[in-house]
Amino acid sequence: MRILILGGDGYLGWPTGMYLSQRGHDVTLLDNLAKRQWESELGVEPLLPIRTLEERARAWREVTGKKLPVFLGDLQEYDFVHDTLESFQPDAIVHYGEQPSAPYSMMDHDHAVFSQVNNVVGTLHVLWAMKRVVPNCHLVKLGTLGEYGTPNIDIEEGFLEVEHKGRKDRLPFPKQPGSFYHLSKVHDSHNIQFACRIWKLASTDLNQGVVYGIETEESKLDPRFETSFHYDGVFGTALNRFCVQAIAGVPLTIYGKGAQKRGFLNIRDTLRCVELALINSAKPGEYRVFNQLTEIFSVAQLAQMVQKEAQKLGFDVKVEHLPNPRVEMEEHYYNVVHDNLLGLGLKPRLLSDELIDSMLKKISGARQRIHMETILPKVSWRAGAAETGAGMRAVGSTGR
Amino acid sequence: MRILILGGDGYLGWPTGMYLSQRGHDVTLLDNLAKRQWESELGVEPLLPIRTLEERARAWREVTGKKLPVFLGDLQEYDFVHDTLESFQPDAIVHYGEQPSAPYSMMDHDHAVFSQVNNVVGTLHVLWAMKRVVPNCHLVKLGTLGEYGTPNIDIEEGFLEVEHKGRKDRLPFPKQPGSFYHLSKVHDSHNIQFACRIWKLASTDLNQGVVYGIETEESKLDPRFETSFHYDGVFGTALNRFCVQAIAGVPLTIYGKGAQKRGFLNIRDTLRCVELALINSAKPGEYRVFNQLTEIFSVAQLAQMVQKEAQKLGFDVKVEHLPNPRVEMEEHYYNVVHDNLLGLGLKPRLLSDELIDSMLKKISGARQRIHMETILPKVSWRAGAAETGAGMRAVGSTGR
Repeated sequence: MRILILGGDGYLGWPTGMYLSQRGHDVTLLDNLAKRQWESELGVEPLLPIRTLEERARAWREVTGKKLPVFLGDLQEYDFVHDTLESFQPDAIVHYGEQPSAPYSMMDHDHAVFSQVNNVVGTLHVLWAMKRVVPNCHLVKLGTLGEYGTPNIDIEEGFLEVEHKGRKDRLPFPKQPGSFYHLSKVHDSHNIQFACRIWKLASTDLNQGVVYGIETEESKLDPRFETSFHYDGVFGTALNRFCVQAIAGVPLTIYGKGAQKRGFLNIRDTLRCVELALINSAKPGEYRVFNQLTEIFSVAQLAQMVQKEAQKLGFDVKVEHLPNPRVEMEEHYYNVVHDNLLGLGLKPRLLSDELIDSMLKKISGARQRIHMETILPKVSWRAGAAETGAGMRAVGSTGR
Repeated sequence: MRILILGGDGYLGWPTGMYLSQRGHDVTLLDNLAKRQWESELGVEPLLPIRTLEERARAWREVTGKKLPVFLGDLQEYDFVHDTLESFQPDAIVHYGEQPSAPYSMMDHDHAVFSQVNNVVGTLHVLWAMKRVVPNCHLVKLGTLGEYGTPNIDIEEGFLEVEHKGRKDRLPFPKQPGSFYHLSKVHDSHNIQFACRIWKLASTDLNQGVVYGIETEESKLDPRFETSFHYDGVFGTALNRFCVQAIAGVPLTIYGKGAQKRGFLNIRDTLRCVELALINSAKPGEYRVFNQLTEIFSVAQLAQMVQKEAQKLGFDVKVEHLPNPRVEMEEHYYNVVHDNLLGLGLKPRLLSDELIDSMLKKISGARQRIHMETILPKVSWRAGAAETGAGMRAVGSTGR
């Protein structure tokens, strides 16, 4: 299958590229390298040194004999998107090419606007170019479970069977996203669903949980294949950050009570889920949603698991509760239906003590690269709080 | 009350300004005059000659003795929005300041992207400036009934009580918008609801039906007070367009079967609804939705009503069914709850033969200004159709 990966330089985009290339697909990577700019803007960097995308792609060819061509350019440029689809003629597009951080989107008005414009316009350009150039291509779009928020009912996979005043319909699942970033994904979902309806495009929207993990089968083949593992307050996710805090000898920081529940999955399962969506394509005109997670934990549970494993390794680990910088429910019902990917054959790799142990050991090997000052949250959701980004300009912002 | 009207040069913005000024409010109008650019871009113009906004505001002062200050500028410029709110310190903002046409948004990728960026970013700027400068201000935002689409259940006012697998919640009503324009309004609604939740802003989202009518109490005071009545295929709405077609001696053009049902209201009821929302403000942190319509008609019913009245006036009027340029259900259930505004005291002016008769007579007086070539639809929603805007650039587009 000819597969174009948007955001091929990212934490998930690069491992997905290797994984699909290894399985015989004809993969091309596209990226504008903006994430590297945002890292510089904020003074953060991935835990392990990451080669340039071109260098990694060359190394991939050297090690595996397989090509992994790179298109450098921005989804904000319609002509670039159009010309890329026209020349590569993908059978499928895997779309990770968005600003991926909730805190980044909450820094100030400029970062909020940038995040929404960047994500919504990029996706609109992909949809219009698909319509014009490759109308039979399958769009596999990465969304997030955060689009749903925390309703007091089960979260179904994208749609809800509603019975109301004696009448019935199957309607899009109501969304209650929790940041301008999460909102951008909700906007994308509505736009994609519309494009599938009017133009008969095919799309799978993967509403993914929080991903953890640092290694994949492919990343282990060569040190140049490492992916960009973040632990900082803006791009880091909970479990990854806790593991780094444990190794760094600082308390694991829980925002608020820690009873917030979220869906999680192993980075290796992300790759498998994307593969399952690709090889079982949506049909023309079909917009389908898969909830992509394997387990639900509270944030406090995760912290306890990391604490326990780190203590086994001899680290003295404390857990600390910070005032929650986010506006979110801290005690709530949370049950997420996720039958679709299991039905296609996903075998979940559940979070194990061994996995946490191996993450801790890997992080320990890079402990001298940990920047302590980047770990704590600096961005607040709240009206009264200082705005972190005030006076800064989102990189890539066009002045709107 | 100090009221800022965004889009004060428009079909509804200008009459709203006069109406509220006449009732003793301290009203200021803001506009970037972009609609006049879009009219030039498409070669269309309002039926009656419209003075510049400054000229109308001066005439208003001359005739009524009341000030109606004008701020000219673009909601895309954050600093302009911020400074305007800071200097005027509004108690309420009435937000009509968006690209208002579904066909305009469907012309090509550039017009789709422009419509979403223009509307979403403008509203984000208003929200951020409110948060920073006037956090107690009440935002009255014009949405549209088109955000809901045509579900097979009753359309409630913004929220739906859901019972699912034995659990209950009150969730945002699921949206199925029918154009990139309608999608932009859905995006706005999600963004506004989030801002109310995290920053405790107060907002009323008026999900309005199709407005008809050409005169208000105030517009009749002086010919310089006319508002911009559109009948063309891009900015015209159904009843207004049918009336112009009847006078022009061309068939009334129904898209498809004509069994599509929509909510409608008189322009005078729009003004009253906005006033009711203003004087019964939302509370801090409250995001509420009012469905703003007084009647439901099918498009074919409207055409028949216009045909009948025009025939009484001696016009020979035919009705013609065109292939539907839109992708929409042509036969569907449609029932829209609209209790909130009635509960606040709205007394609907239902569509009468007399109203159609007076519209026809007024249009007849301006018949020499009708541009026949602008009436028929040129913009198609469909994948196979030629794109009307190809090679054109949305005015105001920043090159993304």
